Amino acid sequence: MDITTQINSFLKKDFPQVTSIVEDIGPQSARVRHQLGEGDLRPGGTVSGPVMFAVADLALYVAILGEIGLVPLAVTTNLNINFLNKPSADKDLIGECRLIKVGKALIIGDVFIYSEGQEQPVAHATGTYAIPPKRENSA
Amino acid sequence: MDITTQINSFLKKDFPQVTSIVEDIGPQSARVRHQLGEGDLRPGGTVSGPVMFAVADLALYVAILGEIGLVPLAVTTNLNINFLNKPSADKDLIGECRLIKVGKALIIGDVFIYSEGQEQPVAHATGTYAIPPKRENSA
Amino acid sequence: MDITTQINSFLKKDFPQVTSIVEDIGPQSARVRHQLGEGDLRPGGTVSGPVMFAVADLALYVAILGEIGLVPLAVTTNLNINFLNKPSADKDLIGECRLIKVGKALIIGDVFIYSEGQEQPVAHATGTYAIPPKRENSA
Amino acid sequence: MDITTQINSFLKKDFPQVTSIVEDIGPQSARVRHQLGEGDLRPGGTVSGPVMFAVADLALYVAILGEIGLVPLAVTTNLNINFLNKPSADKDLIGECRLIKVGKALIIGDVFIYSEGQEQPVAHATGTYAIPPKRENSA
Repeated sequence: MDITTQINSFLKKDFPQVTSIVEDIGPQSARVRHQLGEGDLRPGGTVSGPVMFAVADLALYVAILGEIGLVPLAVTTNLNINFLNKPSADKDLIGECRLIKVGKALIIGDVFIYSEGQEQPVAHATGTYAIPPKRENSA
Repeated sequence: MDITTQINSFLKKDFPQVTSIVEDIGPQSARVRHQLGEGDLRPGGTVSGPVMFAVADLALYVAILGEIGLVPLAVTTNLNINFLNKPSADKDLIGECRLIKVGKALIIGDVFIYSEGQEQPVAHATGTYAIPPKRENSA
Repeated sequence: MDITTQINSFLKKDFPQVTSIVEDIGPQSARVRHQLGEGDLRPGGTVSGPVMFAVADLALYVAILGEIGLVPLAVTTNLNINFLNKPSADKDLIGECRLIKVGKALIIGDVFIYSEGQEQPVAHATGTYAIPPKRENSA
Repeated sequence: MDITTQINSFLKKDFPQVTSIVEDIGPQSARVRHQLGEGDLRPGGTVSGPVMFAVADLALYVAILGEIGLVPLAVTTNLNINFLNKPSADKDLIGECRLIKVGKALIIGDVFIYSEGQEQPVAHATGTYAIPPKRENSA
């Protein structure tokens, strides 16, 4: 089972509310896809901010899982998001993450979010995850 | 109808997916309450990041509506959130916003989020909204 | 020697380039003052962004020193700053920091910066410091 | 006179305190170089945070000048910076900016900062500039 499939299975089991899927896990990178549902939209045919936050946070989380293994206890400590352009109400959101620092205690990455097929990103985020220290006796 | 009631009515009509309620609108400030639902939780009894983002963004939005009137087109341009402490799975989230700059084009505020009844905040956010220019003929 | 004096001495010795002074260290808080020099100004009589960054970063650092002792190795990992109003070229900058999370590994605080005597802040920052782990044999 | 030379001349005249130089202005991008001086260093042979902030802010500013022309009144409204790795005390800092949104009122970009010749970035920043509206009679 490749790493992308493994992470999708892990998400399905541990995060059943997450409906996005992981499309690709690369070296210090990940791509996720989110199909918009009725509840994701806002009046005027735009996508709600929390949905874009969720895509950014997930893309970062799965890029980290791809890098350090299935560590469920990694937690977001900081996320800074800029909303750039109005997303399409009828295209999937694509989140592309690249890790920019992989430390022992902190991992930092950035994410561009696109409406599928469009060149200009709809949002950009930078986020930090804290990685729990390894237990001595599990080494 | 006081301003808090007006804003709750406006949200109910224009943002039917939003389940949080506005408890208070003060001078350049607002307090919102979010009752946690099943879908808001994560394994281990914590609250998902996007739910906290949503509370922060809403608290900021309604503080702005209280300041400049019911302007539906205000949009978030930037939001920076720090996750501080694990929220309770069985307490409401309370978001307390204070505006720190009310400009013509940009309004900036910060939000502390609490699990109700606990002293330490669970998250802190700072965000910016862009305010659409007034149309000449509506003056 | 009180803690404020101790920290000013420590800064003078270890950070000789820093010209700001610590005015007060309180519980999880600090106030610093920066007298503007010729090199801090920009055309149009405004203060350069890096100077305001420096004041925010210092206020956070000394609030942390006040809380956990003189730990020179604490380092900034993230700082988010919003510029709110044009500072005065002829007033001192005052930075007021409050810590909002004191963890073992990460400490987070926010800072309001004022031109002395003015009510509206000129900038607001939120920052995170990483605290080096205590060595076992020093316990 | 090419655009890079023009911008260097403009900086020299209007921002005489800035000692960094612009190496390249490309399409929605810029590269700047900062030679470290004595005052830029911190004990332990590291570079002060405000110096890295200054490099990030400058790289973003000149990328914007390259895009919209020499508009001195553009001002930073938000800058979020993550410090990633310890910079070298004896290498120049290189700041590489890419604009990610060029709007009429707001321009957003990100900047990677490197110690010259090293692969891992020492810092990453995302920032927003507000662009003053064009005056009607100057069109």
